[in-house]
Amino acid sequence: MKAVDFVPFRSVTLTDGFWKDRSDINKNVSLSNVRKRFEESGRFDALRFNYAQTGKKPHFFYDSDVAKWMEAVAYLMEQDPEGMREHEALCEELIDCMERAQREDGYLNSEHQQIDPHLIFKNRDRHELYCAGHLIEAAIAYHKATGRDRFLKIMERYCNLIERVFLVEGSAEFVTPGHEEIELALIKLYRHTKKEKYLRLARFFLEMRGNNEKDKPIYEDNLFGSQDDTDIRHLESANGHCVRALYLYSGIADLAAETDDALLFENLEKVFSDITNGKMYITGGVGSTPTTESFTVPFDLPNRTAYTESCCAVAMMMFASRMRKLSKQAKYGHLSERVLYNAMLSSTSLDGKSFFYENPLEIALEEYGREVAVPKRQHARLPITERLEVFGCSCCPPNINRFFAHLGDYICTDEGNALCVEQYISAELNTAHGHISITEDYARTGKVRIQGHGYTAKSISLRVPEWCKNPTVVLDGKSVTLEIHNGYAYFAVGAEFCIDLDFGISLSFVSANPMVRDNVGRMALVRGPVVYCIEGVDNGTRLNRIEVSADALADATEIPDFHGLYSVFLPAYRLKESTALYFDASQSACEPIRIKCIPYFAFANRGKSDMQVWIRRHK
Amino acid sequence: MKAVDFVPFRSVTLTDGFWKDRSDINKNVSLSNVRKRFEESGRFDALRFNYAQTGKKPHFFYDSDVAKWMEAVAYLMEQDPEGMREHEALCEELIDCMERAQREDGYLNSEHQQIDPHLIFKNRDRHELYCAGHLIEAAIAYHKATGRDRFLKIMERYCNLIERVFLVEGSAEFVTPGHEEIELALIKLYRHTKKEKYLRLARFFLEMRGNNEKDKPIYEDNLFGSQDDTDIRHLESANGHCVRALYLYSGIADLAAETDDALLFENLEKVFSDITNGKMYITGGVGSTPTTESFTVPFDLPNRTAYTESCCAVAMMMFASRMRKLSKQAKYGHLSERVLYNAMLSSTSLDGKSFFYENPLEIALEEYGREVAVPKRQHARLPITERLEVFGCSCCPPNINRFFAHLGDYICTDEGNALCVEQYISAELNTAHGHISITEDYARTGKVRIQGHGYTAKSISLRVPEWCKNPTVVLDGKSVTLEIHNGYAYFAVGAEFCIDLDFGISLSFVSANPMVRDNVGRMALVRGPVVYCIEGVDNGTRLNRIEVSADALADATEIPDFHGLYSVFLPAYRLKESTALYFDASQSACEPIRIKCIPYFAFANRGKSDMQVWIRRHK
Repeated sequence: MKAVDFVPFRSVTLTDGFWKDRSDINKNVSLSNVRKRFEESGRFDALRFNYAQTGKKPHFFYDSDVAKWMEAVAYLMEQDPEGMREHEALCEELIDCMERAQREDGYLNSEHQQIDPHLIFKNRDRHELYCAGHLIEAAIAYHKATGRDRFLKIMERYCNLIERVFLVEGSAEFVTPGHEEIELALIKLYRHTKKEKYLRLARFFLEMRGNNEKDKPIYEDNLFGSQDDTDIRHLESANGHCVRALYLYSGIADLAAETDDALLFENLEKVFSDITNGKMYITGGVGSTPTTESFTVPFDLPNRTAYTESCCAVAMMMFASRMRKLSKQAKYGHLSERVLYNAMLSSTSLDGKSFFYENPLEIALEEYGREVAVPKRQHARLPITERLEVFGCSCCPPNINRFFAHLGDYICTDEGNALCVEQYISAELNTAHGHISITEDYARTGKVRIQGHGYTAKSISLRVPEWCKNPTVVLDGKSVTLEIHNGYAYFAVGAEFCIDLDFGISLSFVSANPMVRDNVGRMALVRGPVVYCIEGVDNGTRLNRIEVSADALADATEIPDFHGLYSVFLPAYRLKESTALYFDASQSACEPIRIKCIPYFAFANRGKSDMQVWIRRHK
Repeated sequence: MKAVDFVPFRSVTLTDGFWKDRSDINKNVSLSNVRKRFEESGRFDALRFNYAQTGKKPHFFYDSDVAKWMEAVAYLMEQDPEGMREHEALCEELIDCMERAQREDGYLNSEHQQIDPHLIFKNRDRHELYCAGHLIEAAIAYHKATGRDRFLKIMERYCNLIERVFLVEGSAEFVTPGHEEIELALIKLYRHTKKEKYLRLARFFLEMRGNNEKDKPIYEDNLFGSQDDTDIRHLESANGHCVRALYLYSGIADLAAETDDALLFENLEKVFSDITNGKMYITGGVGSTPTTESFTVPFDLPNRTAYTESCCAVAMMMFASRMRKLSKQAKYGHLSERVLYNAMLSSTSLDGKSFFYENPLEIALEEYGREVAVPKRQHARLPITERLEVFGCSCCPPNINRFFAHLGDYICTDEGNALCVEQYISAELNTAHGHISITEDYARTGKVRIQGHGYTAKSISLRVPEWCKNPTVVLDGKSVTLEIHNGYAYFAVGAEFCIDLDFGISLSFVSANPMVRDNVGRMALVRGPVVYCIEGVDNGTRLNRIEVSADALADATEIPDFHGLYSVFLPAYRLKESTALYFDASQSACEPIRIKCIPYFAFANRGKSDMQVWIRRHK
């Protein structure tokens, strides 16, 4: 099992188009906005270690929030050093503070040092190693961006302590952390420093999970919470807290790559299938219950109470891309595409300022109204209906910041002897095999042009999207027939080449497996990779009254709207109002209406509104 | 507003048929079974005041449980004194105990006296006056049944204390009780003893509710819980804990009858409409959230999490029959019939041994399976799937006991100048206007015979059921055309008469108002008054996959099954299984199947099973 690499973002320049827009908004709006909110909420103060002066009590995961933001800044410093000067200054200030505050023995955690020193390494669920992991990732990124190793050294000192306490002495009150992250961070550190001990430590944390007597489950009587139900060599299904799980699976994939361990990969394949065959929303979001933010059982995908945390979208991109490195199968890219255009984009408002923690697939405002009957303490947990600029558990906004800051990392793999394009995102790529450029109008028309300049490999492969029915291709001006293997089209090309692909985008309706109870008798509109929804602001309240025929597509109108993508108007029916509560079914009647469907990612940008992805099927 | 009375149960003898069966099961099985379980669970011990000896701690509502059971025994003693000897002996023992234990000042409550004397009249939500009310009702019934007034005198002494503490001194720490019941009990006591002071005290409790500064809401920040949101003169809608609310409305109706207060009646009419136009399940059950066991907002009628406590069925019969006494409108009898054949019957297993607290309208077993992912503490509140013989909060079983023990009370009103048949239940009635007999095959065929013997009034009226489309009538051997006014058919009759009615029962599908989101795109099968359901044990799991056409009725088969009522077999469709989680909607396919529908009241009698009332509509 030879792992390949993606062409790294530093060799990729996004060019004008849909994704550059989103990426620029991240850089120019989101990143600064998150900085502002983090400053206000005392998150930077946490790492300034000034609790004694300010009285602003840090939360025990604040370090990770800041670390992810710093990691985003580091990635963007490589792409636009001038534009990042102000943020760089803040990073330097924080590194100064960390350097001063780090304990003699290497320990570094703003909350535990300032508030709860007696809890250091005592409680699995206090996110110490999770925070450490994110700081390690940030330090590596910062070192790569600046060449300055101060931050990296801080983290290496901390890692030495972690190694001693957990691996050598076993003196902590737990063996593996409640929230995974340190595992993949340590492997990244190993790859960056080439120091074997970090790989050994990562392996220790990975192999001990679900494999020791000391660790107490995070959710008292439930082993799924932090994936304590099984050890990594017996893993078969995706369980527990979704972000934790996906970080774990990413770590395992890294370990499989480093140790060439086929069993680990096989187990991850089972996990991947378990997710994509029964535990994934059509948006690519995961997490079927907000109660424990976790996977539940196959086909349990309720729409209104979908958890689908934005961090899951980021984590799913991490997991899927790592799987892709291990095996050239199109399904990983299919999933990544599904996440990118739906669960990932929906996380952020169109203006880039505000974020969802949970991304519901349905909002029924009347459900909120019923709570009038119930005391506040007992209100049902319903998803928020509008994105917020900051929230108590603001892990998502900086995670989104760092994701878009290195979006270039997800486009193209280097298979050793040739390139393979995974995602159609307009960009110029300087690779070991020469230069290629991708120009796409992918989500709008399904059209993509791939050009090679001084391409030194003999072939190139391109992922054929799963929604594509009749692709047409012109290679160097000549129509060719696609040769598709395992979901990839292969082309023999010269040094200069031009491939024009038309994946032939069209509207279609999707059904869900009938075991998914919420979606029975319903359809979702999709247009290529983009899942659509209907909103109350366009279509009136109580969207459940609306039904649509499968043949409505014949009379669809498409209007350019959201960043060049289309709004879709369709003929539909709405159940007529009735005065009676119950009445003879023969009196039930529909009126014809025309509904407006918008890309799911664009929902909740025009105030509080009902929303539905899955529309009831007429006939 | 002249109130009329129902012909009392002591003048009514149920004769062979559907309801006598149910009534006999109550007398011969349920009553003894509840006694056994109450003995085991220490409920009788509570009123034996022997906590010091047994160490069995009484709950603060145990007195009410026992009182309702004693009330049932008293009603049955009037109908079958010999059959009740053993139960009578227990009643006498308990009355002995109460007599000995009653405090000098009249106070009587087994929990407060034995466990929490410091809480006497201190906490609104400790059910003291609720227990007192049920004991008063039991004492009246026992006095009527036996002529012995020992129990009644105990309760009168207690009432004198309640009057002094609440009305004269205002020395209790609350003004009105958290759980209504005392109000209607006091009016019953007033009617029984003719002592005005009990009416005055009832009026005080009724008029002070939502009308004083002292009472704290039962659910901290929510005034709806115990109907503190408004006073009875401004009542417009049904709110808060359903049983409490319906007991309140029943008390108000009694007050309206006693004081000829039209405003109170008008307000109750608004409440009645609010319930029947938007807050009532098709079964006649009420309560849209188990969280607070309360009404919520119009059209909020979720099926799986229906609260619909069995006590609500009893309380709804109480409220509807009181409204009927105040105004001759068929809607009250329609509602009573809906409750009787559905929400009331479903409360009890067919063998009479076990009971539901909540009566869900849907059971989806897969919802329970998902809880594997979540720690027990955080499991969703899902309804139980099978009836139990006893449960912690066992208010329902003895309430059902007492209801069936005086079922005769709900059949026929004496309008002063004539009789009016409200419910078609086979019975012989000795009334002030002579003898009438009702012989019915109502729920099976829709056929009813009413015969008069020595009937002294000039006419009789009969409620025409709301589901009836084409009634045919033969009066004394001659076909006549029905004269229907306000939902009643009127007949001029002689001393001896025979009316043969055929209400023409047939299967039909019912739709719900499209504002009821759970029922959109669905239909419920009904057959006259009986609502049907489908169960997993007959139709396989995941019933949501099944859909049925409105025209399926043309190909229905009816098989006698549940106590003479029919099972119904219908052609239907089931969504075919799929291996993919999401797929092109054109691939979605159904297979034809035949489903078995059974009366809703008979569900959950064959083990744990899925169940659905509202079936998805095909086409």
